[in-house]
Amino acid sequence: MSSFSFTIEAECPETWARAGTISTPHGVVQTPIFMPVGTQATVKSVSPEELYEAGVAIILANTYHLMLRPGSQLISDFGGLHTFMHWDNPILTDSGGFQVFSLGHLRKVNEEGATFKSHLDGSAHLLTPESVMQIEAELGADIILPLDICVSYPCTSTEAREAMERTHRWAERALTAKERYRTEQTLFGIVQGAFEPELRQYSAQVIGNMPFAGIAVGGLSVGEPKAVMWEMLHHVTPELPEDKPRHLLGVGSPEDFVTAVGLGMDMFDCALPTRVARHGGLFTRHGRVNITSARFRTERGPVEAECDCYTCQNYSAAYVHHLARCEEQLYYRLGSIHNIRYMLRLASQVRGAICAGTFAAFRDRFLASYTPAMEVVREEQREKWKMARRANKA
Amino acid sequence: MSSFSFTIEAECPETWARAGTISTPHGVVQTPIFMPVGTQATVKSVSPEELYEAGVAIILANTYHLMLRPGSQLISDFGGLHTFMHWDNPILTDSGGFQVFSLGHLRKVNEEGATFKSHLDGSAHLLTPESVMQIEAELGADIILPLDICVSYPCTSTEAREAMERTHRWAERALTAKERYRTEQTLFGIVQGAFEPELRQYSAQVIGNMPFAGIAVGGLSVGEPKAVMWEMLHHVTPELPEDKPRHLLGVGSPEDFVTAVGLGMDMFDCALPTRVARHGGLFTRHGRVNITSARFRTERGPVEAECDCYTCQNYSAAYVHHLARCEEQLYYRLGSIHNIRYMLRLASQVRGAICAGTFAAFRDRFLASYTPAMEVVREEQREKWKMARRANKA
Repeated sequence: MSSFSFTIEAECPETWARAGTISTPHGVVQTPIFMPVGTQATVKSVSPEELYEAGVAIILANTYHLMLRPGSQLISDFGGLHTFMHWDNPILTDSGGFQVFSLGHLRKVNEEGATFKSHLDGSAHLLTPESVMQIEAELGADIILPLDICVSYPCTSTEAREAMERTHRWAERALTAKERYRTEQTLFGIVQGAFEPELRQYSAQVIGNMPFAGIAVGGLSVGEPKAVMWEMLHHVTPELPEDKPRHLLGVGSPEDFVTAVGLGMDMFDCALPTRVARHGGLFTRHGRVNITSARFRTERGPVEAECDCYTCQNYSAAYVHHLARCEEQLYYRLGSIHNIRYMLRLASQVRGAICAGTFAAFRDRFLASYTPAMEVVREEQREKWKMARRANKA
Repeated sequence: MSSFSFTIEAECPETWARAGTISTPHGVVQTPIFMPVGTQATVKSVSPEELYEAGVAIILANTYHLMLRPGSQLISDFGGLHTFMHWDNPILTDSGGFQVFSLGHLRKVNEEGATFKSHLDGSAHLLTPESVMQIEAELGADIILPLDICVSYPCTSTEAREAMERTHRWAERALTAKERYRTEQTLFGIVQGAFEPELRQYSAQVIGNMPFAGIAVGGLSVGEPKAVMWEMLHHVTPELPEDKPRHLLGVGSPEDFVTAVGLGMDMFDCALPTRVARHGGLFTRHGRVNITSARFRTERGPVEAECDCYTCQNYSAAYVHHLARCEEQLYYRLGSIHNIRYMLRLASQVRGAICAGTFAAFRDRFLASYTPAMEVVREEQREKWKMARRANKA
């Protein structure tokens, strides 16, 4: 018997936002929630104790990376991811689908599954809806996802429809396969449908009607304009069952988090807060700042006044600036802790506003006062990531 | 008035080892002691709280690096290094002499001082015995060192003598200049003399007779065979005043620490424990192991059985191995914490043995059971560092 449950404590009267509680074998998660990404069984540069202190309730780990190194069988031998990485709160593992999709020419997909070449050693691997259930059972996360197909932006209607239909067939196969494995794990479904409103609506209906305990929305934030992503959510959310938690995969800048909560999303994972931190980008109430800029050189106050994170409680912005300019490893930690705490505090504020019935005003005020990275910076960053991904593959 | 004092609690009847206590404005240090190196006002990848937890009593910071970035004046404006870097235990700053010496063709030395070009931006700087006293006053460490001249190995007798004699004249100038600055700081002298027994003896006498509160031995561990370094200490120690602490600069592998304590040294600083950790080398009671080697892949126990460090208390060797193979930043932290704790525990065991009158047996047992990095590995590493230094300069 699964010990998973989801209850809703409050709903916003003006938007689709809800405040809920997810129960898992490793504890309770209050939603809306942000999950840091621990790709290789570690949230880059941050220890488990520091994650607890920052208020992190649940993290995401990547099946693709862990199946290749150190291998899911080894993690199973160590009693699962929780024991292996010394983390006792809930974990969610993705299915590897997104990573395989991003491998481009290194993968081949047919009805059986997806064949890909490892970015580490070029070895060939086949992922099927069934093998992914076995691998995720070995990893032992509290919440797991089924193999899906994510298409790129833009794509043709035919590609979009075929990928979605196969994702639906794979969802059925995953549900059947899941029965062979650990009952304490909870399987979410994944909505696809690319950037076609009708496909998104249809996929939400199909996946929403399958016996999944929660719904993830995949295939967004893959290069499309923000407006397109929000339009897709406008079509998806009304079709989803009310009583299941909704996870928007791979999204999680402060501004996107607040916007998507208003569009009915409950769970968010994203490497962005820790990745931009490593490049000097730190979140404040007024927007993202770059700690390496000269104005912080002599700043006696913390990175953000009144921030309750370890970094801001103990170090001046000038010292954090110094470490960042020196590319000292302690910087990557201090920056990551700050941004993670920022996201968790934001999630808690958002939840408070939903419970108080003031979320719409909170959202509007937040979006008016928070300056995200400029679109041009964002575009440059996207190019850098693409190049890094290509380099990984080479 | 200086609040510095040094008392000796025990002396080994068979060797020159002593157990002492140093008092400074920021607290007490029991000797023999190992100091981690915080070159740029941070011990690479480790937080102050983690250093306290590992038993670190005192750290060394590098004047050369800090005067260039962020600048000693800025650190002074922040109330000194302790406040700037959030570290409340004692700090020792070196004089910059060793770094300037290692810059090779980028420096020029005359009687006034040493001119060098910054490895960061090529800007020219002049260090004199007087300006170093001012810079170190601004940095605000508890213990400071005077500008000295370190020659390379091998060198001619003439070079060795001239560098030593100038070091002595600069020591006098530093003592005079020091009177203008903060009385709560304590100045140590530096013995030079390269690899000439008579020069080493003479320098120990001259520096030992000057009104320094402690004596550092410089110019060793610069590429000479280990036997040569020990021979030099055999000549130096008997000439030094008994009642002053003795700091062997830049030395601090486990085997060198234990050996040099037997030759009368009390204080040790070295980047080696944290540097080799970052390259996978971890200390155990049986010697240095490489955590990336395949035998740790499935190791359920900690890196070292019975080790009381944070790493060994919370993580399997297999997980540490996984992080190291993935080059995850958490690895650099976990490895560094382990080696630092190892060094501090070793220092505490050495002190215990001295107080119990069993140091000679402890040392012999330790050196018989501890396998250091093979000489060939050491040689490769030395070459790598030299190349890295050259790259820095380019």
